[in-house]
Amino acid sequence: MKQSFFKIQTNKDAPHDEGSINAELLVKAGFVKKESAGVFTYMPIGLRVLKKVQHIIREEMDKVGMQEVLMPTLIQKENFEKTKRAGVDVAFETDRNYILGWSHEEIITPLAKQYINSYKNLPIAFYQVQTKFRNEPRAKSGLLRGREFIMKDGYSFHATKEDFQEFYEKVAEAYFEVFKRAGLRSYRITAGGGDFSKNISHEFSVITQAGEDVMIYCEKCGFAQNTELGEITSCPKCNSTLKKDKCVEAGNIFDLGEKYTQDFDLKFTNEKGESIYPYMGCYGIGVSRLMGTIIEAHHDENGMIWPKTVAPFHVHIISLDQNEKASEIEKILESNGIEVLVDDRDERAGKKFADSDLIGIPLRLVVSKKTLEQDSVEWKERSSDEAKMIKIDELTEEVVNYIKN
Amino acid sequence: MKQSFFKIQTNKDAPHDEGSINAELLVKAGFVKKESAGVFTYMPIGLRVLKKVQHIIREEMDKVGMQEVLMPTLIQKENFEKTKRAGVDVAFETDRNYILGWSHEEIITPLAKQYINSYKNLPIAFYQVQTKFRNEPRAKSGLLRGREFIMKDGYSFHATKEDFQEFYEKVAEAYFEVFKRAGLRSYRITAGGGDFSKNISHEFSVITQAGEDVMIYCEKCGFAQNTELGEITSCPKCNSTLKKDKCVEAGNIFDLGEKYTQDFDLKFTNEKGESIYPYMGCYGIGVSRLMGTIIEAHHDENGMIWPKTVAPFHVHIISLDQNEKASEIEKILESNGIEVLVDDRDERAGKKFADSDLIGIPLRLVVSKKTLEQDSVEWKERSSDEAKMIKIDELTEEVVNYIKN
Repeated sequence: MKQSFFKIQTNKDAPHDEGSINAELLVKAGFVKKESAGVFTYMPIGLRVLKKVQHIIREEMDKVGMQEVLMPTLIQKENFEKTKRAGVDVAFETDRNYILGWSHEEIITPLAKQYINSYKNLPIAFYQVQTKFRNEPRAKSGLLRGREFIMKDGYSFHATKEDFQEFYEKVAEAYFEVFKRAGLRSYRITAGGGDFSKNISHEFSVITQAGEDVMIYCEKCGFAQNTELGEITSCPKCNSTLKKDKCVEAGNIFDLGEKYTQDFDLKFTNEKGESIYPYMGCYGIGVSRLMGTIIEAHHDENGMIWPKTVAPFHVHIISLDQNEKASEIEKILESNGIEVLVDDRDERAGKKFADSDLIGIPLRLVVSKKTLEQDSVEWKERSSDEAKMIKIDELTEEVVNYIKN
Repeated sequence: MKQSFFKIQTNKDAPHDEGSINAELLVKAGFVKKESAGVFTYMPIGLRVLKKVQHIIREEMDKVGMQEVLMPTLIQKENFEKTKRAGVDVAFETDRNYILGWSHEEIITPLAKQYINSYKNLPIAFYQVQTKFRNEPRAKSGLLRGREFIMKDGYSFHATKEDFQEFYEKVAEAYFEVFKRAGLRSYRITAGGGDFSKNISHEFSVITQAGEDVMIYCEKCGFAQNTELGEITSCPKCNSTLKKDKCVEAGNIFDLGEKYTQDFDLKFTNEKGESIYPYMGCYGIGVSRLMGTIIEAHHDENGMIWPKTVAPFHVHIISLDQNEKASEIEKILESNGIEVLVDDRDERAGKKFADSDLIGIPLRLVVSKKTLEQDSVEWKERSSDEAKMIKIDELTEEVVNYIKN
């Protein structure tokens, strides 16, 4: 993909009203445009990242046996009246008594009725990747807290609490895997059930300075705990020294019990022939928030540093007056499954390098008269300060090895 | 994929309030659930079709050089005030003076400002695939006319009207290709510019009895015309006899002229150094509507008949007490890139056949004791009444040939 076609409009001026790294870098690098408080447009290069994050989440949810659906944004207010959630502050209301979906228990539970009659139909679990709406009074922090944002929300139904607990642990493992694949180390924290449940829940938190929460955690064994629960200094599990940092909640999983199945009178017949309520769980990941969190965790003073798995492109070829050769290399790499962006613009080298650092593609290859005299290109990884020359003959193999590992 | 896991909840009773084939069949076959007038949930099997339709559209838009973005649903009312479209009937309004996006000229035009300064930045074109909202008083006809629906909307910016016209024709060709790949013959009809433009536009219409419009058309050369423009009986282009039928508008393309670039004061410097307004075009396809239109065009009294390109699965294996052999065949076909659904449920044969016809997967393979005695399966295409036996040894090659051609 050539930048002469795939335009990335970088901006010198960072927004000052957001006060967060992800907002500043995303806008500067032309990944998103802020439309109003907490509302963004994803530009072509930003949308590429968002799709990769979504793809990872979908793969991991499919693996645990959740089935993807797509529920509506327009939800009749009467659905929320049944669960006593019609009056919550975060809800946007619109004409014809619709509430814009901010969570979808009110849709999935009646929907699950179609599938569930007998214990033979259980367990069953659904998820969706969808735009959600919350009327945040203080939308801020870029993609970390929006009024319009993308979320993966999943819901599971079980014949017994034990079956639910087993599935809940499988989802927890999948969440660790999602965050790991997205380049993040996450910690699982026990938390309360929120406003609508007395049951427990767990948060998956990632350490970043932009976080609104604080946790104490053990880098060695992964133990973590909310500071609200009291201060401790050594890990109760492995005895290592604990650290304390700001963090962002990247995902959460909830024990919903029978609240919603009771509210919608969803019952099934168990093996004894009794008609009872299924046990329900709920599992959320802020998809656009995750994109913002990755940037909070991976950047330096020059820009973003994308993990290979979610980078908008794998390789950024900087052509210094060598567009023909750059295009040749692009084609060879692309035919090997590598995603390549070529800076073929008529710009000075300094601008090209600065933009490349800002955009943060993992591997930069410079093609110039000087490098070609040695039948080489210059190889520089975004996460490293060192550059080296690499023969064009060996380039494809090296790039494939680097990107795929 | 096994139906014991991938549950498809077919319903005996059709909805009576919609009065359209697509609504009736989609609900009966468990592809969608109606939530309220014009608002649907896509169930797992329905979402598979929706994604395939989206994929075809994205491929064809990418080919003409449009770049994908994702704009928000929450649009500030002041944007619509600039274009004098704030008061239109179809707009849903919500708290904080947001209008739910029903069209996105009000977002894309200010966004394009970031990219356009000089004639060297033109042409440039963007599209998105996104949920749209229209406060339809009479939402009906299933996916043909919803309050919440999925749309592909594209927008292009040009230095001259001539350049716009050239691109407009390229998009028109891409539209024919989209509909053809989705199994539909479309006709291009010249129409007015709608409420906000005196310029011309074109509609792409597909013949179905569920249509709200009527057109006269020539099957031979593709000429078509709205009946509003007067009655003619022989084709002015090829002299063949014209036909007259109800039709559905599946897409449209608009000449927007300079209306929106003027409204948002988006200017560029042309080759003569003059600061002028770019010329703009707009291109829509109703994505969910297209899914409904395909059903309107391809069904019989027993259910849907999906074109291979958009079918939820390629092959439906009906296991009659032969789950092990069915699973073997499933694995071999899947390893050859074929999408397979296996009916491994504990149901009687009649129910399995009826559900299979209803769901409408293009190729049905029956695996039973009788067929296995001949080392064969029974092959029946959904669009044909004939069945034949085919040796298991030859099956993979035959299936791949059938599905890929």
